[in-house]
Order: sequence, then C-alpha cells, then structure tokens
Amino acid sequence: MDFLTINELKKLSLEETKEYCDFLRSYVIDNVTAGEGHLASNLGVTEISVALIRLFNSPEDKIIYDVGHQSYIHKLLTNRIFDSKNLRTYNGYAGFTKRDESEHDPFGSGHSSTALSAALGFSRAATIKGEDSYSVAVIGDGAFCTGMTFEALNNVTKDDKLIIILNDNEMSISKNVGTFSAYLNRIRINSKYLKFKRGTKSTFSKVPLLSKPLLSIASKIKTFVKRVFIKPNFFEDLGIEYLGPANGNDIETVERLIVEAKSRNCPVLIHFVTKKGKGLKEAEEDPKKFHFVSSSSPKNKTFSTEFTTLLTEYSKENENTVAITAAMAEGTGLVNFKEKFPERFFDVGICEEHAPTFAAALSAGGMLPFYVVYSTFFQRSYDQIIHDIALQNLKTVIALDRAGFVGSDGPTHHGLFDVSMMLTVPGSTIYSPSTFEELKYSFKKCVKHDGVSVLRYPKDADNEFLSQNFSSSKDFLLDTKDTCDVLIVTYGRVSEQALKAKLLLSKTGAKVSVLKFVKLKPLDFKKISKLILALNPKHIFVVEEGMKTGGFGEYFFSNVDYSCHKEVFAIDETFVPQGTLEELYSHTKLDAKSIYTRIKKWI
Amino acid sequence: MDFLTINELKKLSLEETKEYCDFLRSYVIDNVTAGEGHLASNLGVTEISVALIRLFNSPEDKIIYDVGHQSYIHKLLTNRIFDSKNLRTYNGYAGFTKRDESEHDPFGSGHSSTALSAALGFSRAATIKGEDSYSVAVIGDGAFCTGMTFEALNNVTKDDKLIIILNDNEMSISKNVGTFSAYLNRIRINSKYLKFKRGTKSTFSKVPLLSKPLLSIASKIKTFVKRVFIKPNFFEDLGIEYLGPANGNDIETVERLIVEAKSRNCPVLIHFVTKKGKGLKEAEEDPKKFHFVSSSSPKNKTFSTEFTTLLTEYSKENENTVAITAAMAEGTGLVNFKEKFPERFFDVGICEEHAPTFAAALSAGGMLPFYVVYSTFFQRSYDQIIHDIALQNLKTVIALDRAGFVGSDGPTHHGLFDVSMMLTVPGSTIYSPSTFEELKYSFKKCVKHDGVSVLRYPKDADNEFLSQNFSSSKDFLLDTKDTCDVLIVTYGRVSEQALKAKLLLSKTGAKVSVLKFVKLKPLDFKKISKLILALNPKHIFVVEEGMKTGGFGEYFFSNVDYSCHKEVFAIDETFVPQGTLEELYSHTKLDAKSIYTRIKKWI
Repeated sequence: MDFLTINELKKLSLEETKEYCDFLRSYVIDNVTAGEGHLASNLGVTEISVALIRLFNSPEDKIIYDVGHQSYIHKLLTNRIFDSKNLRTYNGYAGFTKRDESEHDPFGSGHSSTALSAALGFSRAATIKGEDSYSVAVIGDGAFCTGMTFEALNNVTKDDKLIIILNDNEMSISKNVGTFSAYLNRIRINSKYLKFKRGTKSTFSKVPLLSKPLLSIASKIKTFVKRVFIKPNFFEDLGIEYLGPANGNDIETVERLIVEAKSRNCPVLIHFVTKKGKGLKEAEEDPKKFHFVSSSSPKNKTFSTEFTTLLTEYSKENENTVAITAAMAEGTGLVNFKEKFPERFFDVGICEEHAPTFAAALSAGGMLPFYVVYSTFFQRSYDQIIHDIALQNLKTVIALDRAGFVGSDGPTHHGLFDVSMMLTVPGSTIYSPSTFEELKYSFKKCVKHDGVSVLRYPKDADNEFLSQNFSSSKDFLLDTKDTCDVLIVTYGRVSEQALKAKLLLSKTGAKVSVLKFVKLKPLDFKKISKLILALNPKHIFVVEEGMKTGGFGEYFFSNVDYSCHKEVFAIDETFVPQGTLEELYSHTKLDAKSIYTRIKKWI
Repeated sequence: MDFLTINELKKLSLEETKEYCDFLRSYVIDNVTAGEGHLASNLGVTEISVALIRLFNSPEDKIIYDVGHQSYIHKLLTNRIFDSKNLRTYNGYAGFTKRDESEHDPFGSGHSSTALSAALGFSRAATIKGEDSYSVAVIGDGAFCTGMTFEALNNVTKDDKLIIILNDNEMSISKNVGTFSAYLNRIRINSKYLKFKRGTKSTFSKVPLLSKPLLSIASKIKTFVKRVFIKPNFFEDLGIEYLGPANGNDIETVERLIVEAKSRNCPVLIHFVTKKGKGLKEAEEDPKKFHFVSSSSPKNKTFSTEFTTLLTEYSKENENTVAITAAMAEGTGLVNFKEKFPERFFDVGICEEHAPTFAAALSAGGMLPFYVVYSTFFQRSYDQIIHDIALQNLKTVIALDRAGFVGSDGPTHHGLFDVSMMLTVPGSTIYSPSTFEELKYSFKKCVKHDGVSVLRYPKDADNEFLSQNFSSSKDFLLDTKDTCDVLIVTYGRVSEQALKAKLLLSKTGAKVSVLKFVKLKPLDFKKISKLILALNPKHIFVVEEGMKTGGFGEYFFSNVDYSCHKEVFAIDETFVPQGTLEELYSHTKLDAKSIYTRIKKWI
C-alpha cells in the first residue's frame, strides 16, 4: 500500500480507511522499532488521527496534539513520511509537533497540557478575524489532570468552536495519579455497567472491549449515539458537552462521534478510550515497556539510578526524608525509592506548580523533601521555588535530572535554563556533578544545606573519561598550580570536552589549565580570585552547557576580581535542536575540537 | 471591649462570640481605613477566622490562609494587635500571612492558590510523624478557579485530615471569570431554589441572604445540616465531601458546619457564602472600592494608565491587537482598553500558565497579543514564555506592571526577578522605561520587534525628576561625553537615585558620568564598549533595582570589553521587606546617599 494525500484519504470508504489505519500502524511499528521513538501511544491514536484529517479541513481547522509525542500518524498523514533513519535525528523529523515542519502543525509542543490553551487562542483569533474554523485539541488522560488544562477548561466559552478529544489510554490510566484520573476511571466503568444493565447488544455496549466486529447499520449508530452518552457532571458543570466514552480504535465509532460533535453548537469533549500499543501484541500487553522504544541498549547505571540509590541509603537513617515527583517516577529512577519507602513517596502527577509548594509545606512540617524532576519541566516551578521555598527558607533538595542536552527529544526538552533560574534565587546552593563520585559528594553537601539546594545531573551513565581524569570530592578542581596562558573554567558533563580541548591545545605548546566546578553557588570568589591571580592567565574561557545570558559564566566573570581577556562559550541566544550528544556539542561549538579552535585563535 | 487570648476566646458563648466578631470588625474598619490595607475581604471572613481559632487547636492544627490578605482577623486573634500605624509598614506587621510573625501562620503567602498544596504537605507530614492534626485551607473563590488549586485538589486522598473552606464572596463572584466560577454561582442559586421549593422556612433557606436572626434551636440545625446539602458533583467527583452553601457571616452556622466537617472521616469542603465588606455599609455596597483602602490619595496618571492609553491608541489602527490579563484588569488599567475593544480583551482569571500559551496561539493565529501582568505573578509564566512563545518565535508583547519595588505589599510582591528571567530567554527584547516619554518610545519599539518583547514599568506616576533631567526617546542616554573617573550605569526608576548620587559626588569634585539604559536587551556591546573607552573611567558601578545574580549588571559587565574596577549595586542574595519606596531604597542601599557613600570610598 502507498501513502495517500489528504484528498485521497478523504475519499476512502470506511472499510478502506480501516485498512489504511492498519497500514499506517504497521509502518509505525516497523520504522519506530528499527530506530527509536514513542511507539505505544501512536498505535493507540491511529484512528483518531486519521479521522481528524478526514473530517476537518486542516490547516484552516487547527488540529493540536498535546505533548506531541503522539503525532507520528498525523505526520505520516501530512506528508512527513519519516523512516527509521530520520525520526528524532539531527536534521530529521521531530518527535513532537513542530510549526516549522508543516502547516498542519499549528502549534508545537513537547511539554504537557498546552493544547487546550492553544486551541482557545486559535478559536478567539478566528472569531476576531470572522473565520468559521474549528479548533481541535487532542489530549491524553495524563495531561488532562494538570492545572494548566484546568485553567484552559475554565476559560472555554459556549461560543468557542472547539472540540476536545480526550485520548484515554485504558491501560495507562491506573498508573495516573489523582482524584481526577480516578474519576475518569469511574466514568468508564459506570457507563459500561449502565449499558449492560439495559441489555444493549450493540458493539458499543462492549466499549472499551475492542475485539468485536464493526457495527454495519448506520441508523443503529444514530440511536446509539443518543443513548450511550452519560453526562459526567464534571465537564457539563464547566459548560462543555460530553460525548462518550467510546472505542477510539474503531474508525466508524470515532468518525460518527466527531461528526456528531461538529453538529453541536457548543464546545464538545469526546472521550475516546484507546488501546496503547494497539496492533502490536507485546505492546498491548506491556504498553509501559513500549511507551518509548530504542534500538540502542539501555544503560545499567545512570545518574538517575545512582541518585536514587544515594537517596534510599540516606533515607534509611534519616526517617524524615520524603521524595516528590511529577509523573517521572520511572524516568528519575524513583520507583526504587518508592519500593522501599512507599509512605514517603509522592507522585503528584503532571503538577509542577503543586509539587514545590507541597514540598515546602512538608519541609515546614519537619520533613526533608527531595523534589525530583527533569530540568526542563522544572521551569514550571519557578514561582513556587521563589515564593514558597526560598522566601520562607524551607530546607528542600531539588534534584534536577536531564540537566543539559537531552539528545533526540530536542529543543523543548533540553535542560539549559535551570542554572540561570536558580543562580538568581536568594540563598540557593547549586551542585552540578559530572561523575558518580561527584554526585555522591554533592548529595552529601545538599542534605546539609539549610535552605534550597539544587543537585543537577545529566541523563547519562557515569562519565568514564572524567571519572578517570578529573573527578574528586571537592567543590572545585584545578588540574595544575603552575602559571598558564589560558584558563578554561567549566562544570558538568561538558567538562570532558573542555579537558580534551586542553589536551589538543597542549600539543601546540600552549600552557592551559582547567578549573572545573562541582559547586556552582555560592562560591568564595575571594579565594578563587587569589587562585587565578597565582595562575596569571592571559585568557579565561568559561565552557558551559547551558544558556550564556544569566548563566554561570556571567556570574563567574562578574564576581572574579582579575583582569584579562574573558569569554563565555555557551548557548548564545538560540534554541538547540535535536541530535546525539556528539552532534549537539558540535552544533553549539562546545565539542573539544571547536573549543580548541575557538581558543587557538587567541594564542 | 478588650482583645482576648485564644483560651479566653474558646470559652465564649455563641452570643458573646458574635459580639466579639462585631468588635473585631469595628477594630479592623477603624484601623485599616486610618492607615491602609485590604478591608472588604477581612470584614467578610471575620466569623470564619474566629470559628477556626475556636474549633481547631492551632498551631498543632494548621490553619492556612490562601493569598493571606484576608488574614487580618486571624492576626488579631493570634496576638498580633496591629493598628493603623504598623500594618504593612517597614518593620510592621505584614499584609499577608508570614511564618516569622507567628507560629499560627504555618505557611506564608502572597501569591494566590498555594494554600491547598501547603495543607496537603502538612497533612502528609503529620501522617508520617504519626500526628493526629488537621490541616485547614481557607481559599477565596477567585483562587479556587486556578490551575494550581486544581492540581492540589487532584492530589487529595481520602486519608487526608483536611478541611477546605471555600470563602465565596457573593459580591465578587460575578466579576470572576470562567466556567468554574459560573458553576459556583449555579450551586448558590440552585440550592436556594431547592430549599424554597421544599418550603423550608429556616434561616438557612435564605442563604445567602444575611440579614435574618440566628437560628436558636440546635436540633433544628442538625436536621438542616442533613437536608440542605446538595451534592455538587464537581467536588464529589474528586472524592471530597461537600457541605454548603451556607451563610459564612453567621457564627452559629459557621461553627456548626465546621463541627460537622470535623466529624466526617474524609476530606471535606465547606462552601461559605460571605459578604465582602460586611459591617461597613459603604463597603457592602461597593466592595470593589473597599477591597483595598489607603489614606493616601491615588495618582491620576500612572504607568498603568499611560500604557493602556498607548495600547488603546495603537489598537485603533491595528485591528489585530488583543490584550490578555490574569485577573488584573483594574490594577493594570486594562479596563479602559476593555471598554473600547471588549471583543479583543481577555481576562483569563488567575491563570498565569494558561495566559501566555493562549497568547502564543493568538499570535500564531495572526493577532498581536499583549500579555499584561504584574512582574511578580509573571514568575508563574516562565516555562510557557520559553516553550510556547520564544521557542516558536511568536510575536508577543509582555507588559510587566509593578516592576521593581512595590512598597507595602512586601517580599512576595516585589518585581525583582523579571529582568533575570527574561535576559536568559533566547531572542527576547527588554525595555525598562522610567518616564512616560520613555514608555511611549519603548512601546513603539516593542510592537516592532518580531518575537517576544518585554515592556516593564513601575507602579508609579511619571517620574518628575527624571522627566525633567534625564529622559528622551533613545535606547540609552549618556549625560556627558567628557572623560570621567566614575561611570554609573543604571536603568528604570532607580536611575533617579543614581543621578542624585552623581550630583552629590560632583560636589566633592569627582568626575562622574551616568549611562542610563531604556533598552536592556539586546545591546550593541561593541558600540557601548567604544563609548566607555572614550569616557575612560576608573570605576564602573551598575545601579540596579533588581536581583544582582543573573541580572542586568552581570550581563552588562560580562559583555562590555573594558577593564577597570567594576561593581554591581543591586539586591544581593536576599529578599526585600515591605516599606515605602524611600525606606526600601535605603534598606537595600540603593538610595542616592548610600550610592554616594559606596562610590565615594573608591575615589
């Protein structure tokens, strides 16, 4: 079978559409498992993606995927025929929606829960321009439980030409946390019960069982559509009509409901229950395992697992430690802590506003909270860190996983802002270890700091090069006490590139020293200035895997009392694309060779 | 009547308690109107505050006021007898809850919607410690409509010993926006209707009418308590028992319901309808006017009003402009824009996560959005600014009102972080005008910038001193081209202090120049370096009304290519208390005299 244009797709019969869905699904299975990417969610959303393109008029109608990792089918439908070689790769297709890629991606994503806010923006813009277009937001059940989605729900008006698709992955819902997710669960169970009691024998009475044949008689469906709807008050209370729950993997059901929703003169939410991993037996059985697949083998020990080990060890003797995460228990390794101390572990869901304030009060209540979160998602906690934790000086350890480049997840996910965020916060202490040894040292320091401390580490295994050459239990390390021409100042993972650049420079006869920081703040700048004075360099370069403006380099240079040529090599006024770590270092000129070249021209 | 201790208060009869409430109310009216502060909300919450102290065992039980501006009665009850001279003043009592002030303030506040997250933190800490204490969160109807409260609601479990007091100010609810607020409104109306239909003749059937005498027979109340409760599914859906709505200004009703809530073995929400301004006729009739009162007369023209005038003018010829605010239409002056262009004005409620993403999509949809927000609340938009606006380079103007010190609102409200936040954001442009003339110039520049631009201005009238001495339509201003010993670099309102410090220094014979920036980023540092080279100063001091670390001074010094003694005078690793602008400049050593002294020792 061949890929179809949108126009060709719209002309298919239902039966042909079903076949096309199977084709797309196979294509995704083949190409994602051969490369890497989000698999299970894209298999689940196939019929919804196909139906949306068939029934709406994209790009005039705006189809917005929340988070965007479930947009692979949408990409294939809109002339982005990725394969195993060019998905999530440097210069390849993004793993998320992206405005630059296609006019059919009206709003890019990566972080959760932005779709409904965006849909409302497009809806109001259309109204002002006098356009009669739809805004459609496709949102997973996880993202639906967040504050940001609620804020948007609260702003829906009856005039919004808006259709919300709640893509409820039946298998994952039990893993979501919180009362709202439990509520969705009850809707599913209750509606099923109601139908059985009424003795309805249609396919739909078996929702969400997915194995039955299609209902063939259209008139039956119409009756069904009126009958099956229950009225969950949560949505109706917010002025949004509710349709469902219904089988989101049956193309006929999906299309009928969307047509029905379009016919209403008000905002409608359609609750589709879909099967994560649909079409791939192993994935259906273990969707968690197939949420993200990669042909490269996973590392045994990472900073995440090492951090959790340290935390778990520490918690044995310190009964007041608690760990909080925002739907990242697996990614951060905290599942292991949870097993040991279930009553001291809190997964609050995708709630990065609630999490730090909750942590602050746990601290005020006598606990020592560890808020464990990816650097990029931590950006949502900024105000609460300042207002609730730092201002009240409540002892809290913030563990930032995925600090620095994250690779193929790309610009929405790189952890490049946390250092500049936290440097500004009064009283904060920041550690940025680059080896397991340094992680252990930093951990010990953070738990002793009486206030807010940040422990940031990359998505990586231990750095062998640095572990062997440049790691110890100290706030900072200097590789020589001799005078030098060039001093390279650095921290974190990119230290490896800085150190390798020094080796290249040394071959040319240049006298180069490297000063690597593990602790970023606060620093004894008097002591450091003295040290630098003794080295007497003509040039100082800061090499930083983070934003230049507001970053460590600027902080360092404006506090060090030493005059010479100074320069910061960091991310300068730009966002960084997706790619391998090697590609990204090269792209940002932070690889050893680029650093070598950039310094060489000065000596 | 005299103020009572907590123990004495607990021993009062209901009738005596009612009298004490009247006494407290009079005291607040007298002392707040003679000084300044939040009035109407504190009059409304009187009975609730009194009942909470009487029926709970503070500080073991945690009573947490959201936002905290409704905590005046609570302060009086907990031995903080403020008067008209020492409320919201330098070294006086805070206008919000504050941990340092009293053990009866378990969690400080200022920003909205943190109370429930905090209550959950205390609840879990108590569980872990094996303590049997209650957590009580008092939340207004405005804060209840935010994402952060929803995130916390979503994390309530049946084991939390939690009581949520929804303090629903009947008069203000119509001004709240959003579907959830409309929902609360319906609850009120429907429950009233239900009772009338049933022919109930008790006082409570008239809720929220507040003028009826107390119900005297206790047994009647018990029956009532069972009968009057409707079951709003929104809360019940989230696993929280709902009691109400009920008259929150009738001490007997309030106490009965709290006792009832305490008797349940699950989290309970009590919905009290209270009268904002209760007890002061003028305030009851115009609670908006009496929300905040001050004996000093309001300024006619402020940066807020001037900004709105500029926006309204611009919007006449540019039909794609839209304005978005997060419940700050009055404070930001946007009400005037709203009058002219109601269909292009959006108040999204206290939703600082939704607002910027909504703005981003409006921009993607062809509009030019102005997101108008207080600097301090803007901290909640950090991730969305990066992820949704800047990364997608969607043209958006962010107008930051209340930038810099805000005076008596204190540390939770000062706008001291926005410059460091926005400097780091790739592609951002920042303007910080200090006079109306500069505001006009900056506005013109921002609307031309193709990306995210920030226009930040203080809570002030036009600065007469600067307007007369140092204002023009330029990106920056230098007051002399002669060489100098000292160069003072500054921006924004504090420029007045810098310029006055120069005048003082000049009297001693020192050659001082002032370089004032209106545009903070991006800057042509080559040109600026050349300029400074021509001035040839021995010392450069940056004077900044903002955070030092990550702020403009550090950005400036690390980009300017000129060697000499350099120092930043700014807010260094500390939070700034409440006080008058003069007091705060003096406190932070940013007043003219301190600047003079700090510089003098170098020359």
